[in-house]
Amino acid sequence: MTEDLKLFNDLVELLLEEEQQNPVATPIHTSQLYKTLDLGLNEQPSIDADFKHTLSEIIKSTPKTASTSFFNQLFGGRLSRATLGDLLAVMLNNSMYTYKVAGPQVGIEKIILHKICDMIGYGKESNGTFASGGSMTNYMAMLMARDKHDPSVRNKGVHTQMIAYTSEVSHYSIAKNASFMGIGREQVRFVKSDDFGKMIPEDLENQIQKDLKDGNYPFFVNATAGTTVLGAFDDIKSISKICKKHNLWLHVDGAYCGSVIFSNRYKHLINGLELSDSFSVNAHKMLGTPLTCSIIVTQDQKHLYQSFSNDAEYLYQTDDDEFNLGKTSLQCGRRNDALKLWTLWKSFGTKGLESIVDKQFQLADIARDYIKDNKDYTLYSFDDSISVCFNYKNIPAKTLCTLLYEHSALMVGFGTFGDNEFVRLVTINTTLKEDDILNFFKVIEDFAIEHNLN
Amino acid sequence: MTEDLKLFNDLVELLLEEEQQNPVATPIHTSQLYKTLDLGLNEQPSIDADFKHTLSEIIKSTPKTASTSFFNQLFGGRLSRATLGDLLAVMLNNSMYTYKVAGPQVGIEKIILHKICDMIGYGKESNGTFASGGSMTNYMAMLMARDKHDPSVRNKGVHTQMIAYTSEVSHYSIAKNASFMGIGREQVRFVKSDDFGKMIPEDLENQIQKDLKDGNYPFFVNATAGTTVLGAFDDIKSISKICKKHNLWLHVDGAYCGSVIFSNRYKHLINGLELSDSFSVNAHKMLGTPLTCSIIVTQDQKHLYQSFSNDAEYLYQTDDDEFNLGKTSLQCGRRNDALKLWTLWKSFGTKGLESIVDKQFQLADIARDYIKDNKDYTLYSFDDSISVCFNYKNIPAKTLCTLLYEHSALMVGFGTFGDNEFVRLVTINTTLKEDDILNFFKVIEDFAIEHNLN
Repeated sequence: MTEDLKLFNDLVELLLEEEQQNPVATPIHTSQLYKTLDLGLNEQPSIDADFKHTLSEIIKSTPKTASTSFFNQLFGGRLSRATLGDLLAVMLNNSMYTYKVAGPQVGIEKIILHKICDMIGYGKESNGTFASGGSMTNYMAMLMARDKHDPSVRNKGVHTQMIAYTSEVSHYSIAKNASFMGIGREQVRFVKSDDFGKMIPEDLENQIQKDLKDGNYPFFVNATAGTTVLGAFDDIKSISKICKKHNLWLHVDGAYCGSVIFSNRYKHLINGLELSDSFSVNAHKMLGTPLTCSIIVTQDQKHLYQSFSNDAEYLYQTDDDEFNLGKTSLQCGRRNDALKLWTLWKSFGTKGLESIVDKQFQLADIARDYIKDNKDYTLYSFDDSISVCFNYKNIPAKTLCTLLYEHSALMVGFGTFGDNEFVRLVTINTTLKEDDILNFFKVIEDFAIEHNLN
Repeated sequence: MTEDLKLFNDLVELLLEEEQQNPVATPIHTSQLYKTLDLGLNEQPSIDADFKHTLSEIIKSTPKTASTSFFNQLFGGRLSRATLGDLLAVMLNNSMYTYKVAGPQVGIEKIILHKICDMIGYGKESNGTFASGGSMTNYMAMLMARDKHDPSVRNKGVHTQMIAYTSEVSHYSIAKNASFMGIGREQVRFVKSDDFGKMIPEDLENQIQKDLKDGNYPFFVNATAGTTVLGAFDDIKSISKICKKHNLWLHVDGAYCGSVIFSNRYKHLINGLELSDSFSVNAHKMLGTPLTCSIIVTQDQKHLYQSFSNDAEYLYQTDDDEFNLGKTSLQCGRRNDALKLWTLWKSFGTKGLESIVDKQFQLADIARDYIKDNKDYTLYSFDDSISVCFNYKNIPAKTLCTLLYEHSALMVGFGTFGDNEFVRLVTINTTLKEDDILNFFKVIEDFAIEHNLN
């Protein structure tokens, strides 16, 4: 291992330097990829010098998600205390299904889950687990809801028209999951959203009423804490009232912005969260851990056991089921995604996580202020969001973003809301400073001149 | 990052030393865990010295899956070239859904998938993806089979009695997945296995006939390449004939031992694999990469697109869909599980991977020979398997394994087949030598005397 650790340290040095010198990797067109880099796998080993050279070239041309020019995704930056935890998880290489094989790592996962349950006001019976991403935590919520609504489905299969509701601007995984779970995409109702991208509770109520009249079986409502494009927060309290009335499972998809639970200033955005049945949050988004760190918690852990437990004598060989996490997880073998959040949380404190979250809103405020103060820009997004959506001098957003990427100037994406298409700047990299945000705009302005886009 | 990299290197030094000095961590009873280790998360940050101390203590008491005393699971050991790749993946932190954000990492994933498709004789239309574990790759196979059998299910939901077949000793994920996907656990038929743990094709045929007579809809057969307990290989050719006859999807679950495709000496065990519709293999098992590295390939990539693609304009912003891997994956955001296998494969060559696989069978032969030559042992497993199942002096396997664990002597598990319960030694750690295997038995023998188990 020692030799490869040295190689690792050398390559990290290169990466950190590259992130500074060339914050946007020069993109290689897919048609040129295999000609440009020696990715091929051969019968014989690569000699060490070639191997190191190839790895260096790969690192140089891999998109730099931790650089100050990366605003393309709902993650970015690098918090080294979290990275440390994930590096250690690789070295330790435990599987999280049993206490016998994961030991204290199980305790680490449980501490995080219980702390989050406490923070959001879930009761004594609450519990949770980690899954491999936000789509999968939504999926687990939908499965628990389905199996609570009709416990016979687990054994008999789906046999009624079960209906799920989500807003028209929510994440696409709700429909995809409806296909996976056997209820079918057509049984997902897309509830209208208002001008701010929030679900309209009245439309939810109307659609439920219609389904009941049609003899269908509503069972699940997904509310979103941070929609994918605008970063909007659905009104959990109002939605919860409708769910209680009709006895529907309320899931809050906080994959993107659920981490506002850590902020005294912004947690009002998820007011009523304690009324939900389940809640998911990706620490690899706002909390800046490496991918993936996806958490789902639920009010009553019996639903986790009912939907996900499975006897397996060959596997569960110590008695304390509460510590055998395989009994409440989607999968069987599972990598340790908890340690990276624990190292961050332990060393920053809950107060430190609050600062991380607040900083992102602060950076968004700086961006929005800049846009509002400058008449060449049009703003399409709203306060209390870390998605800042805008156009510059009416340059089509797709054109601008593609050119910025192709010329290694910036990594930023575009989105749509209603009839508008716009650039979506995501201020999720906590390590950025005010100047980095102002520089983002300057790069665009200079680029537009240089490329005659005005 | 520099400071935390130093901390990482220090802690790795500790870990490597501990693996040598205390190859089996002293287990902490769950009731004592939170009193023994400072796992709690507080408002305020931990001071650096405390943080480092706590992390050191956690590392010391975490089960050492890379030590010479770990035989408990279907993974173990550490191949530093694979570990290097996964450490780099943590630092690079790309999400694998789009080429824009993952760049050459997409090429790395594709090279691996196409190479595997080629090796197993899949045709030009074949393709694959990575998922978060073997249960999930089985799940993807079942979903593709379901959607091929009845394409209306994706939109309309499950509306017939769809039947899946798997052997009675196959992995539990088949039944669990049947629940998830809405066909229901009762629609899984457990086909009888013979004395060697292989599925009996005649029983499969009989059960299909019965289902057809009952008006049910058979759609999927799971064959196993390396059953969980005995490491047995189902007869793919015979099963394939039955599948072709009834137009059923044949999946080969090679999570445990599918890596025999790399060995000229052992690939006869999966004869007929080219006749299957899909095949899954966990490189984190026999190929020794860190968790998880789970691959599924299928003969016709249109099934991947049909079951898993989803339009998402906010996400897919460059045109080359073949390089936007999110269109063929179960999830949305996805960590880079490909690089670790690529660094191993590139630097070892395909020939090197063959040696890794062959070595494990060689170690198993050494273990079986030892058992056969020693009348205090009873052997319950068979040749051509890296699971070596035995009892020693009629000591109940559960008692022995639990005591070995509690006294930090060895990490090894037990299993059952038919009426027998036995110790299951898994020789999957390629870094072991003959002496380590012989020492495994010596530890048991000394332990039995010391603890009066004879």
